Amino acid sequence: MTYRAPLKDFLFGLKELAGLDQLTQIDAFAEAGLDTAQAVLEECAKFNEGVVAPLNWEGDKNPSSWKDGVVTTTPGFKDAFRQYGEGGWQGLQHPVEFGGQGLPKAIGAACGEILNSANLSFALCPLLTDGAIEALLTAGSEEQKALYLPPMNEGRWTGTMNLTEPQAGSDLAAVRTKAEPQPDGSYRVFGTKIFITYGEHDMAENIVHLVLARVAGAPEGVKGISLFIVPKFMVGADGSLGERNDVHCVSIEHKMGIKASPTAVLQFGDHGGAVGYLVGQENRGLEYMFIMMNSARFAVGVQGIAVAERAYQKAVQYARDRVQSRPVDGSVAGAASIIHHPDVRRMLMTMRAYTEGCRALALVSGAAYDAAHHHPDPETRKANQTFYEFMVPLIKGYSTEMSLEVTSLGVQVHGGMGFIEETGAAQYYRDAKILTIYEGTTAIQSNDLVGRKTARDGGQTARALADQIAQTEELLAARDDAAAQSFAKNLKAARLAFLDAVDFIAGSAKASPNAAYAGSVPYLMLAGNLMAGWQMGRALLAAQDSLNEGEDVDFMKSKIVTARFYAEHILVKVPGLRDAIVGGADSVCDMALDAF
Amino acid sequence: MTYRAPLKDFLFGLKELAGLDQLTQIDAFAEAGLDTAQAVLEECAKFNEGVVAPLNWEGDKNPSSWKDGVVTTTPGFKDAFRQYGEGGWQGLQHPVEFGGQGLPKAIGAACGEILNSANLSFALCPLLTDGAIEALLTAGSEEQKALYLPPMNEGRWTGTMNLTEPQAGSDLAAVRTKAEPQPDGSYRVFGTKIFITYGEHDMAENIVHLVLARVAGAPEGVKGISLFIVPKFMVGADGSLGERNDVHCVSIEHKMGIKASPTAVLQFGDHGGAVGYLVGQENRGLEYMFIMMNSARFAVGVQGIAVAERAYQKAVQYARDRVQSRPVDGSVAGAASIIHHPDVRRMLMTMRAYTEGCRALALVSGAAYDAAHHHPDPETRKANQTFYEFMVPLIKGYSTEMSLEVTSLGVQVHGGMGFIEETGAAQYYRDAKILTIYEGTTAIQSNDLVGRKTARDGGQTARALADQIAQTEELLAARDDAAAQSFAKNLKAARLAFLDAVDFIAGSAKASPNAAYAGSVPYLMLAGNLMAGWQMGRALLAAQDSLNEGEDVDFMKSKIVTARFYAEHILVKVPGLRDAIVGGADSVCDMALDAF
Repeated sequence: MTYRAPLKDFLFGLKELAGLDQLTQIDAFAEAGLDTAQAVLEECAKFNEGVVAPLNWEGDKNPSSWKDGVVTTTPGFKDAFRQYGEGGWQGLQHPVEFGGQGLPKAIGAACGEILNSANLSFALCPLLTDGAIEALLTAGSEEQKALYLPPMNEGRWTGTMNLTEPQAGSDLAAVRTKAEPQPDGSYRVFGTKIFITYGEHDMAENIVHLVLARVAGAPEGVKGISLFIVPKFMVGADGSLGERNDVHCVSIEHKMGIKASPTAVLQFGDHGGAVGYLVGQENRGLEYMFIMMNSARFAVGVQGIAVAERAYQKAVQYARDRVQSRPVDGSVAGAASIIHHPDVRRMLMTMRAYTEGCRALALVSGAAYDAAHHHPDPETRKANQTFYEFMVPLIKGYSTEMSLEVTSLGVQVHGGMGFIEETGAAQYYRDAKILTIYEGTTAIQSNDLVGRKTARDGGQTARALADQIAQTEELLAARDDAAAQSFAKNLKAARLAFLDAVDFIAGSAKASPNAAYAGSVPYLMLAGNLMAGWQMGRALLAAQDSLNEGEDVDFMKSKIVTARFYAEHILVKVPGLRDAIVGGADSVCDMALDAF
Repeated sequence: MTYRAPLKDFLFGLKELAGLDQLTQIDAFAEAGLDTAQAVLEECAKFNEGVVAPLNWEGDKNPSSWKDGVVTTTPGFKDAFRQYGEGGWQGLQHPVEFGGQGLPKAIGAACGEILNSANLSFALCPLLTDGAIEALLTAGSEEQKALYLPPMNEGRWTGTMNLTEPQAGSDLAAVRTKAEPQPDGSYRVFGTKIFITYGEHDMAENIVHLVLARVAGAPEGVKGISLFIVPKFMVGADGSLGERNDVHCVSIEHKMGIKASPTAVLQFGDHGGAVGYLVGQENRGLEYMFIMMNSARFAVGVQGIAVAERAYQKAVQYARDRVQSRPVDGSVAGAASIIHHPDVRRMLMTMRAYTEGCRALALVSGAAYDAAHHHPDPETRKANQTFYEFMVPLIKGYSTEMSLEVTSLGVQVHGGMGFIEETGAAQYYRDAKILTIYEGTTAIQSNDLVGRKTARDGGQTARALADQIAQTEELLAARDDAAAQSFAKNLKAARLAFLDAVDFIAGSAKASPNAAYAGSVPYLMLAGNLMAGWQMGRALLAAQDSLNEGEDVDFMKSKIVTARFYAEHILVKVPGLRDAIVGGADSVCDMALDAF
């Protein structure tokens, strides 16, 4: 077995941190309690450990390939995706009325992590399909929903997001793809899209492309962009498949990682125009696409956690097996397995603490999303929505940045063997590097955090979060225990540093934007570190309570050690980030442009 | 041109930081002043920019390959290596009496960086040959030196280091390769060595393998290891090549990076025994090998700086060319090249500051090595040797760890294009990851720093360095200038944190080794950060002085901005590392072994 889903940690997080029991008080999730979560996660683990995980290294060796417009995926992918659809996994979080399971995002986040740990490349197909489903749910017409969502939820059809063009990456204002209205109400779409994940493949009967394009006469910039459905095969009113639409894959990219996931260049309209159907209203495409993007950003953050977990498990295995040198404390007489060496421990603990912290934050934020969408009380909905929106750029940005460090440590634990491809650790390192880039780079997430999430309300949301953190601090400080005391001390220092950073960012975003945005990524790293750390502090409290009750003693002890490690080795980075943000703005933009 | 050697920065570092003028007062280096340095570096740049750099991407696409025991290197490598030898580059730092140029290591470090920036994979062949030359210079007999060194200095023969075996990586005590004495004074060598860089190739007439092996009856562990010369082709007394020796390459590795550098599995003695010649005395092999290792560790540190510089240059080029989005400060009306965006600036400045800081430390340490070996005054020699020995693990450990961050940022600046192999940025990211592993992992460097370099003298050397840093602080604090003031403040905080860490490490290394070694890598990162930062502080002072004289105004301004950036964004990490070392030792080793 190359991967085992960390079921205990998911269930602990759902119960103690995300408050799954409270979610069941919402009608929509009345059935989605801990027992359901456990049953679903166990099934999910079984499928992904057994079917999907073994295809991961296979996909690196035998990537998806392109020939004459046809993309053939890695051997085994097609069958695994069929099983995925038949198992109901694609519809997990989507409404029952369109064939989904209607489970909360909190559980969905855990299932998403398992799938992505098993196989990042494979998981991208469902991930993009989820985004497309959410966009159609929000902005699609009733006919569109009825026509497209059931086969998508069943995993018979997949979805894509067509945003990027050669000149329009982070800057969607530069999108040039055109859509020409037709007398029948449809459009003809013309243009080139690049970096389209699973833009073409052989795993589904049809592909539902969601495409950003401009209708003639639309305003310049982002306010003139509309969203279209462009199916690969035309769809009859009864859902039957018709002829091939005029969208074609002209090549796929040769990438450093996630090689099994085909990254397509799609050509729309080279043979008369690709038939497209407007989603929602004209010129509101970006708004709809952001629904999809926010869903995808959360999911990409989960990918970071997932690849970190997989790298951790592999490193632990190697550290147990590899015998080399005598321990410095003389605890073993001869050479010992390297897990006995303090620096190997430090690396493994770092990997684990990052992963558990980010996982906790994702589960908690998933539950907030669920409450934001389904809680009966509007105030509660609003508060949860605000919380969720603040966390999305952190989950995306911080969890993926940490995955670079974790997968690098994963290689490092393996020593020279880590650099040999057959070992497998290198794949995680190569795969992870896309995560800080796609669905909005870390800088794009940071801009969101600085602009919309912090400066727009003058830092109010951020300060309210700091108040909540202070409550956790008090609980920790009140415990007569070294781990809790250490945590309280480091959490306080981090919180105060966060407040300094918030004051600086909120205070300078308008008056001196270069200064605020110069610190945007350090601010994201600071806030992500703190928010994940906060969850680890809450986890420490809950684990101590459970330990006192004699519940699952070994697990709770490990959780306490891991939380303490987070505080003492990761949270301690926060004040240095504050110093860079508050004290280092000038030196970022002082260099003359031609002096670089 | 894909790479331009940063000649100005080398000359600034050699003049203002490494004190090349003082070195010329040593007889051996009387001719090696700034004019010589400039002439040599210009030639070096010309050769590497024109001949070696264009082969870098070629080597990634067409790695060295193995067939039937024969390794064929990337097309172009053989010819480039011939030119390298003919140009006298292999002998640059080696004694004139054996055909070398006798130049100081300070200049050699600069040339080494240029070569490695041009092509990390190619540069490994000369790098290992340098190490073999140094080992023979120190421990070889006069006959061995006369026989082997001239063709090695000419680049006609190359050298290798044969340490690693499947069960003996970091732990050389586990070496099993055997050497059986023969009546004629030679030995027969039997065993398997793995991870042998350029262990087999087609670029030279002969390969001089330096091999660690045990003579029958030798003590267990590292005290029973001897060093042998095992030439690929037998060598006559007149230097003529004879028959093939019994050492064969049975395979090469499939690696994540440095693909053009063949990493060989070598089989010694499968056909009767490989003829080997003892170097120095029996059972002192590890001692000799450490000479080679220290040379190679310094050189690998320089590799980190080199790949960081190359990644920086590529990122700058892309940031100038790629147009995307409007700047946040409204300084450009429409979309601008991304170098206008604050976070892109921050990434480029981070890359640059790390690279310049580590380069400065390498040049200064190179000059210390030169003084340690050639200065007429024994006290001066000793002081320089102590300085150099403290810095070697930092140069190796810190410069390579920073290269991971820098090459990752290099990909990040490119956005999605960075993940596409053809762009080239990904190669640096993949290549760099070996640097924190080979020639002793970062943890091995840290053990050296903690044990031999810090704890052994009770922290005396470390504290003496802190005193020197305090002097630089005073000079900075005395300047009426924001950059110098900011630097002084951050340098002081970093120095005090270093002293805390030294006290902790020196105080606990014996009494509680797990605690000291739990913080070993953070201590290395702290010390490396500080020592490189110290050099940037010295650079700031020198640059301000030159600026006041009106010398090379643009360069000096850039140096000041970069130094300030280092202080405000990189040095600020130091106190957090101290907190982890001093306050976090317990949580590193607290996890139960079976709880991982």
